[in-house]
Amino acid sequence: MNYQDFFAASLDQLRDDGNYRVFAELERQCGDFPHAQAHDGGDTTPVTIWCSNDYLGMGQHPAVLEAMHDALDRCGAGAGGTRNISGTTHDHVQLEAELADLHGKEDALLFTSGYVSNWAALGTLAGKIPGCVVLSDALNHASMIEGIRHSQAERMIWKHNDLNDLEAKLASLPLNQPKMIAFESVYSMDGDIAPIKEICDLADKYNAMTYLDEVHAVGLYGPRGGGIAEREGLMERITVIEGTLGKAFGVVGGYIAASADLCDFVRSFASGFIFTTALPPAVAAGAAVSIRHLKSSTAEREQHQSRVSEVRARLDSLGIPHTENPSHIIPVMVGDPVKCKYISDLLLQDHGIYIQPINYPTVPKGTERLRITPSPVHSQGDVDRLIGALGSLWSQCELARMPLAAQ
Amino acid sequence: MNYQDFFAASLDQLRDDGNYRVFAELERQCGDFPHAQAHDGGDTTPVTIWCSNDYLGMGQHPAVLEAMHDALDRCGAGAGGTRNISGTTHDHVQLEAELADLHGKEDALLFTSGYVSNWAALGTLAGKIPGCVVLSDALNHASMIEGIRHSQAERMIWKHNDLNDLEAKLASLPLNQPKMIAFESVYSMDGDIAPIKEICDLADKYNAMTYLDEVHAVGLYGPRGGGIAEREGLMERITVIEGTLGKAFGVVGGYIAASADLCDFVRSFASGFIFTTALPPAVAAGAAVSIRHLKSSTAEREQHQSRVSEVRARLDSLGIPHTENPSHIIPVMVGDPVKCKYISDLLLQDHGIYIQPINYPTVPKGTERLRITPSPVHSQGDVDRLIGALGSLWSQCELARMPLAAQ
Repeated sequence: MNYQDFFAASLDQLRDDGNYRVFAELERQCGDFPHAQAHDGGDTTPVTIWCSNDYLGMGQHPAVLEAMHDALDRCGAGAGGTRNISGTTHDHVQLEAELADLHGKEDALLFTSGYVSNWAALGTLAGKIPGCVVLSDALNHASMIEGIRHSQAERMIWKHNDLNDLEAKLASLPLNQPKMIAFESVYSMDGDIAPIKEICDLADKYNAMTYLDEVHAVGLYGPRGGGIAEREGLMERITVIEGTLGKAFGVVGGYIAASADLCDFVRSFASGFIFTTALPPAVAAGAAVSIRHLKSSTAEREQHQSRVSEVRARLDSLGIPHTENPSHIIPVMVGDPVKCKYISDLLLQDHGIYIQPINYPTVPKGTERLRITPSPVHSQGDVDRLIGALGSLWSQCELARMPLAAQ
Repeated sequence: MNYQDFFAASLDQLRDDGNYRVFAELERQCGDFPHAQAHDGGDTTPVTIWCSNDYLGMGQHPAVLEAMHDALDRCGAGAGGTRNISGTTHDHVQLEAELADLHGKEDALLFTSGYVSNWAALGTLAGKIPGCVVLSDALNHASMIEGIRHSQAERMIWKHNDLNDLEAKLASLPLNQPKMIAFESVYSMDGDIAPIKEICDLADKYNAMTYLDEVHAVGLYGPRGGGIAEREGLMERITVIEGTLGKAFGVVGGYIAASADLCDFVRSFASGFIFTTALPPAVAAGAAVSIRHLKSSTAEREQHQSRVSEVRARLDSLGIPHTENPSHIIPVMVGDPVKCKYISDLLLQDHGIYIQPINYPTVPKGTERLRITPSPVHSQGDVDRLIGALGSLWSQCELARMPLAAQ
């Protein structure tokens, strides 16, 4: 067995398939985001980022940065330990209170990332509740799939957003058997939204817990940024709301919000929570301010939606095909990994526009796409340059356009 | 099935067993660490922290904080995406180069935490190399155990630090079968150190990869802080060195350092690397400066070792029993969860000294302990107060002392 040969051959295979990923090396310019410098060797060139999950530009909000500067000066860089062993700071406790309030829950629990929060919370809940069956939406995020797998609980996968299939699977189980329905609100690659109310109705009927991933919705939807469940008045019907601090809130980290006992249970038994260094106090302080700001300010959400609508309309006017959905995510389908990367490369080289090609395993093979995420900090000029670039590229590469009648 | 009753009953059971964890809520005072304020409801009291993994006080080093302030002003709060989708910044790339250099490896790969680095790297390597068997030290950290479990590879557990047992297990496998020996350098709860050279000899003999967790050693050992493997001139013999940015380096995050192809392989296939938001640029910038500082400055390491020796000698002079080991970790064994928490509570309430009780599941039941971690930033007065407090507490509680002859 030659290990190095194995690694090299596996990477060659990825390259041959067009699925080898090249990371763009960026340097965001605080105050000027979505503009950044792209590094390539020793050179830098200015680019406009159109694929960030810092959906509202909160990562450069002065109040967020001030809170982080202040916490660095006050408490230093790291937490210095796990939450149990010297790593729980006042900033963590305050952030958890802020999160519980955001979702109208008794308590919240912080994790080092959204990935870890799904992995640890689902793994612990489904793994420790005797006989628990997890009913998992077919398009759930990798972190949820891994958490469910980690639990070793029985898993039933229901067709994406399909209530009939979910009900058939729920009805096939004894009423008294523990069950958890795991799903997302906004699915991040297609931008579609789950029928949350109807899923809660089924959960009530069949005595199931509900676990809702709102990472692409918190901060963005609902009167206070509580997500789709808040917007639809459903937060109290959800057993566990999971969210992130690394997308609309602009910092990093993940969390769950739920009953006090449920959070305490995960806190007490989740390996991925217990055995890891806590987030830096400055991260917690910055996230808390970001959440607090978006609880009272609706301007960012309104501008976000308006910018998304505008980009969609402009794409339509050129016949550039994108998948319709009720969220803020604009997937421009390409359907081929090599072509997808080629378009992305041209956008960067010729137009200074950075949209990462989204290839397998992030999306299924054959559904490769450019995923555009407009934000309130994209200017009118940014939109004009994006549309101009896509229009000329669509002509240059003779890419398919939507018939005007379909617009 | 009543889910809330189940959670409540599980928590009651933990309380009855004495294993329910109460987190101390601290507010570190930057520049004055290990001193902090302990919050309790609305009250705060001054405490000295004696159980932090910010082993060298780098979390308050002015150069680290300056780099973080600068990066916040330069790039903002969060990375805004996964490493693949807009989240790779210039600071990440520079930090990975710094880490590769630290360990004399071709490349390095950053993760959001040390836990995730073990889980993702072991899970991917052992899971993707066909037929790979993982030979895992019996006392490996939870994150390694979970990574190995995640890989679904065959696992053979060898007795802790036992070369004979390791060799017997290696010899039982065909020479050409892929194998990985997974172990740590410094075991964090007992402070003992693995026989790295002899393990590498066995790896060569039986054609095994080696995966070494150095999280409690990087920054602390070796001429440039590369860890125990650097100190012993063994870094090039290790296939994968895994480390953390959250302990001696004082910030947060984890990494592996290895060959370029191995890092690229993990980068390309590890779910826990791919599907998670990148660390904030400010975290990467602070960690890079911390590593760079400890590559050239040995003062912190020397003062650290000298402070550890002094605390050990002072404990010996009072006959307070602690486990001997060749590292910086001083475990004072108590052996009972309730008593361990009681002593910890008295230290905090009566002496302003914070040492978290270490109970199950962090250590096996019956080996509950106080784990003391002296640092260069503990003053002579801090040491005097610690020893005074432990001495009076040992008398007050009539705890066992070591016979003087055994000292």
